Amino acid sequence: MLRDHGSRDREFLQVVRSIRERLLAIGGATSGDYECVLIQGSGTFAIESVISSAVPENGRLLVLVNGAYGRRIVQMAEIHGIQVDVLETPENRKISAEAVERHLSGSTKVTHVAVVHCETTTGIVNPVQEIGAVMARVGAVYIVDAMSSFGAIPVDLAASRADFLISSANKCIEGVPGFGFILARREALLEAKGHARTLSLDLHVQWAGLERDGQFRFTPPTHALLAFDQALSEIDAEGGVAGRGCTLLRESQSAR
Amino acid sequence: MLRDHGSRDREFLQVVRSIRERLLAIGGATSGDYECVLIQGSGTFAIESVISSAVPENGRLLVLVNGAYGRRIVQMAEIHGIQVDVLETPENRKISAEAVERHLSGSTKVTHVAVVHCETTTGIVNPVQEIGAVMARVGAVYIVDAMSSFGAIPVDLAASRADFLISSANKCIEGVPGFGFILARREALLEAKGHARTLSLDLHVQWAGLERDGQFRFTPPTHALLAFDQALSEIDAEGGVAGRGCTLLRESQSAR
Repeated sequence: MLRDHGSRDREFLQVVRSIRERLLAIGGATSGDYECVLIQGSGTFAIESVISSAVPENGRLLVLVNGAYGRRIVQMAEIHGIQVDVLETPENRKISAEAVERHLSGSTKVTHVAVVHCETTTGIVNPVQEIGAVMARVGAVYIVDAMSSFGAIPVDLAASRADFLISSANKCIEGVPGFGFILARREALLEAKGHARTLSLDLHVQWAGLERDGQFRFTPPTHALLAFDQALSEIDAEGGVAGRGCTLLRESQSAR
Repeated sequence: MLRDHGSRDREFLQVVRSIRERLLAIGGATSGDYECVLIQGSGTFAIESVISSAVPENGRLLVLVNGAYGRRIVQMAEIHGIQVDVLETPENRKISAEAVERHLSGSTKVTHVAVVHCETTTGIVNPVQEIGAVMARVGAVYIVDAMSSFGAIPVDLAASRADFLISSANKCIEGVPGFGFILARREALLEAKGHARTLSLDLHVQWAGLERDGQFRFTPPTHALLAFDQALSEIDAEGGVAGRGCTLLRESQSAR
């Protein structure tokens, strides 16, 4: 982290490329149908990038809420003037895929559905794969906030049918804060073109820039990216996602 | 930069407080009428925070353009649906305060004016103080993008009459990238309340959070902030803004 790279240095661009590939591998994206986008800021910036870029003007977002981070997605959708449905579940219970299916059968207008995988405030892990199966049946775009799960709780992009899965540098992968990342099904990413409501958080343009010349559009947190590259090596050394999950469980148990 | 602070640690909050105070001092804000807001992301995120938060729905922004960064402000205003006037000056010439005054005398609808202090692409330094005198006469809110000048070219907030002055961690102050900062006249900042078009880049709420408990609303780049604290000490040791300006000039001359 103490190396001072220029954001266009060849060696730095190689680090960015490698980070994007390794994140896709952690998400089980071996098919070539998925892309990885990195974006500056905290995890919330990355979530807002997806919400404000992926839902078109005539779209309707259903947010599955059982905690503070679900409510935050509702809040950002409202700020962007996105039509939003909320399906509330008590904070001490998992969201039920059946309840989601029932809600959607009553509304044909929902185009996008967002859920928090692990609600940081309660630790509850929602059944993203079962909910994903419902998405596949109703044909909605599926957005998974995996902020405090990705890297320690296995998520397979294809199996969960997530179109957008979001996390950040400084959670289970244990990098330093400074950026977030989005794993996206390429087709869903292409559909986001032209729908962004901001310049800085335009998900499609950010991805297109990374694809074109390997660079961030705007100055990246170079030192945080170098640290993250090392963090990814450490997760490998620990036995990947399964190993990291066990380590965190052990630490939380011994802390009791 | 290698210390791993929690974003709510007392020692870290003291660093954040100290950074905000030292930035105000560099801007010559000794009167207590100014505030400092720090925000995650690159400099462009900080600019977009001001543009998308300060101009109300019925406002009209005049952007003074003589280079790429002026055009970028126009672009972000358009994305946010802000009514925008553009006054273009050739890239190899400074913007003239008289031309600005002429333009404004023909339009009574402009409420906000934005200018780039030093156009990074050409190095041209625009006369922000003379333009500020025009702003004072016409009563427009004055936004200065001081990205590549602040810390090396003296800017006095009161003398320039800037309502919002924006720069980032990794330019003339020579910190590492990861956040930007805004020096704002408190009254102008209070007027921005409720006008933001995003959650992450809401300037007023970000400030209110820093004032309430000293914390960023969302995870800050803690390591970049620690590095910045050190960078501010190094600028002091170099003789402040005047000293840093001389150093950069000397380096650029010896590089020729």
